[in-house]
Amino acid sequence: MDLLEKACLAWLHSVPGIGNRSLWWIKENFKSFAVFFKADNKSLQQTPFKAEVIDFVLKRRLKIDPVHELEKLLVQGFDLICYDETAYPGLLRTIPDAPILMYYRGDLAVAGNLCVAVVGSRAATTYGKTMARKIAGQLGELKITVVSGMARGIDTQAHLGVLESGGKTIAVLGSGLDVVYPKENRALFEDIGCRGLVLSEFPLHMPPEPGNFPRRNRIISGLSQGVMVIEARKKSGALITANFALEQGRDVFALPGPVTSMTSQGTNELIKQGAIPVTEIEDIINEYLHILPGECLQLQQEVLPLLEDEEAKIVEQLEFDPCHFDLILRQSGMEIGQLSTILLKLELKGIVKSLPGNYYVKI
Amino acid sequence: MDLLEKACLAWLHSVPGIGNRSLWWIKENFKSFAVFFKADNKSLQQTPFKAEVIDFVLKRRLKIDPVHELEKLLVQGFDLICYDETAYPGLLRTIPDAPILMYYRGDLAVAGNLCVAVVGSRAATTYGKTMARKIAGQLGELKITVVSGMARGIDTQAHLGVLESGGKTIAVLGSGLDVVYPKENRALFEDIGCRGLVLSEFPLHMPPEPGNFPRRNRIISGLSQGVMVIEARKKSGALITANFALEQGRDVFALPGPVTSMTSQGTNELIKQGAIPVTEIEDIINEYLHILPGECLQLQQEVLPLLEDEEAKIVEQLEFDPCHFDLILRQSGMEIGQLSTILLKLELKGIVKSLPGNYYVKI
Repeated sequence: MDLLEKACLAWLHSVPGIGNRSLWWIKENFKSFAVFFKADNKSLQQTPFKAEVIDFVLKRRLKIDPVHELEKLLVQGFDLICYDETAYPGLLRTIPDAPILMYYRGDLAVAGNLCVAVVGSRAATTYGKTMARKIAGQLGELKITVVSGMARGIDTQAHLGVLESGGKTIAVLGSGLDVVYPKENRALFEDIGCRGLVLSEFPLHMPPEPGNFPRRNRIISGLSQGVMVIEARKKSGALITANFALEQGRDVFALPGPVTSMTSQGTNELIKQGAIPVTEIEDIINEYLHILPGECLQLQQEVLPLLEDEEAKIVEQLEFDPCHFDLILRQSGMEIGQLSTILLKLELKGIVKSLPGNYYVKI
Repeated sequence: MDLLEKACLAWLHSVPGIGNRSLWWIKENFKSFAVFFKADNKSLQQTPFKAEVIDFVLKRRLKIDPVHELEKLLVQGFDLICYDETAYPGLLRTIPDAPILMYYRGDLAVAGNLCVAVVGSRAATTYGKTMARKIAGQLGELKITVVSGMARGIDTQAHLGVLESGGKTIAVLGSGLDVVYPKENRALFEDIGCRGLVLSEFPLHMPPEPGNFPRRNRIISGLSQGVMVIEARKKSGALITANFALEQGRDVFALPGPVTSMTSQGTNELIKQGAIPVTEIEDIINEYLHILPGECLQLQQEVLPLLEDEEAKIVEQLEFDPCHFDLILRQSGMEIGQLSTILLKLELKGIVKSLPGNYYVKI
């Protein structure tokens, strides 16, 4: 696709009233976006577009140079990928209503690995956040690309988990790439752009409007072989992503959780409806053994951290319910100093978490 | 079945080396336990029983009067039910290796209602215990008999929950009825004997030997249309009960729980293997709509406690993770006194639980 063609597509994509489906129509009927951009009034008026859309194109095209607009975008460190280009993510290409173009920063090649989405609630619990980070980290260690939405809560933890593991991650945004949302994720956005891929279907400057997120979610599932839902309320964006996954023929995984937790209601419901319950990383991996490279299968053996005997004893003793230090001490029969050391080691290994008031839980 | 016949069955049942299958063999081949009891040496020696078993019978039968032994049992407030009697629980009659006789105290008729077992870990968490009590209580309100094993933890909570709701419950013991185990459940044993049914396949004085419990578990599932497993470790008695339920063609229900909790590993595993996940009582009831009397369906509407607006607001705000009073206060915008009152009301309604250090969780 030549620069002018791409530039015209990008400009038309930013015209109010021209969406993804309209662009597919133009491609089908005009064969070229540059031809449409330069078409005479009569040809344009014979299209099914509304009068105000055609007026907008007729007036504005006199004042702008699409190639110059595209260059402004490139200068900001962003790029465009079109459906026709070979670098376009292969799996995404197969979904209904595939985006005809997307804005991105980073390395498109990471979308060519086995991709699994890890998504969930913005208002996540400690349980959900811990599990998102752990599962995403384990996927990262297995060289599986983790796709998520860079939202608060589960999404953020998923990206952090995979980055910590040295793995690759893709963030799909519901706003323009120059509108980082939520703002506190600015550093994460930069990090993912350097070490993975940030993608958006929305033109620059597009604010994170609520209506954008369901469209964004179809890309998250579209890029992925499977979608792992960590926590979700009964009516939530994560469930929309899971629905897209089903429509697109992708696997849906869900983390079981306490029925007393609002944010596990959606995931437990998914399991009731047939989603694959995930209690350990193997439950995801087992679905992809046929497409995982041998290297990953070897790595899989090493994911679980090794515990010393005394550490294992304490882990065995601890429960999901918070347990006071004194009780653990009494039950273990250890010295205070010894137990403190072990609990600290377990905390560093990410197996135990300390809570206020000298309580400990297994995570 | 006449008294002598029943008495001889009971005495033979207490002979070391004669188990349920041996008794079925005697019934098949001698047609009468009294005939076997009085059989000549030659007839006995032609049976497949071991020499020491036959010696035991030959020596002891001279010294005892089976009817007198049975009367001693009746005087203690216990009774016997045999497979041939019409009062024998109908569903239990259908299982392979059905007990040919059982000892009981209480009302056998409660086994004629729709029965659902509620079972789980001895070492249960707050989550499991709370849910066992809640679900058993809701079953009780719906006039469904709750079957369990009177063990520590989940079983105890299940019996308590249904008794609180005014419902009926059956305790199936792994020891003789005069050996209450665990000892702290003495009052519960008496209570169930008065208001429900306690059952055991084991003769009086039989201690709670580990080998008894799997046999006991087949009766728990055998009496029930379905088995609800609340919490279970990976290798646990509750899973044995679930396996019996499958073999006996009964439904298996399981409560999803955090994958980080040892006692939810077994239940999550059951769900992976196809057990019905239960997040609300309706998930159990829906399986039995065709056999529930209309009265129950009406009751079903009233199970959930009504909340006032302000209570609902706090419930909405709380999560499964412990939350400090000060944080709830800040987020609610209420006065200290008002919030304290609401939290107390919610605690009384069994919706919220206070933890040490002024933390609160939704339960």
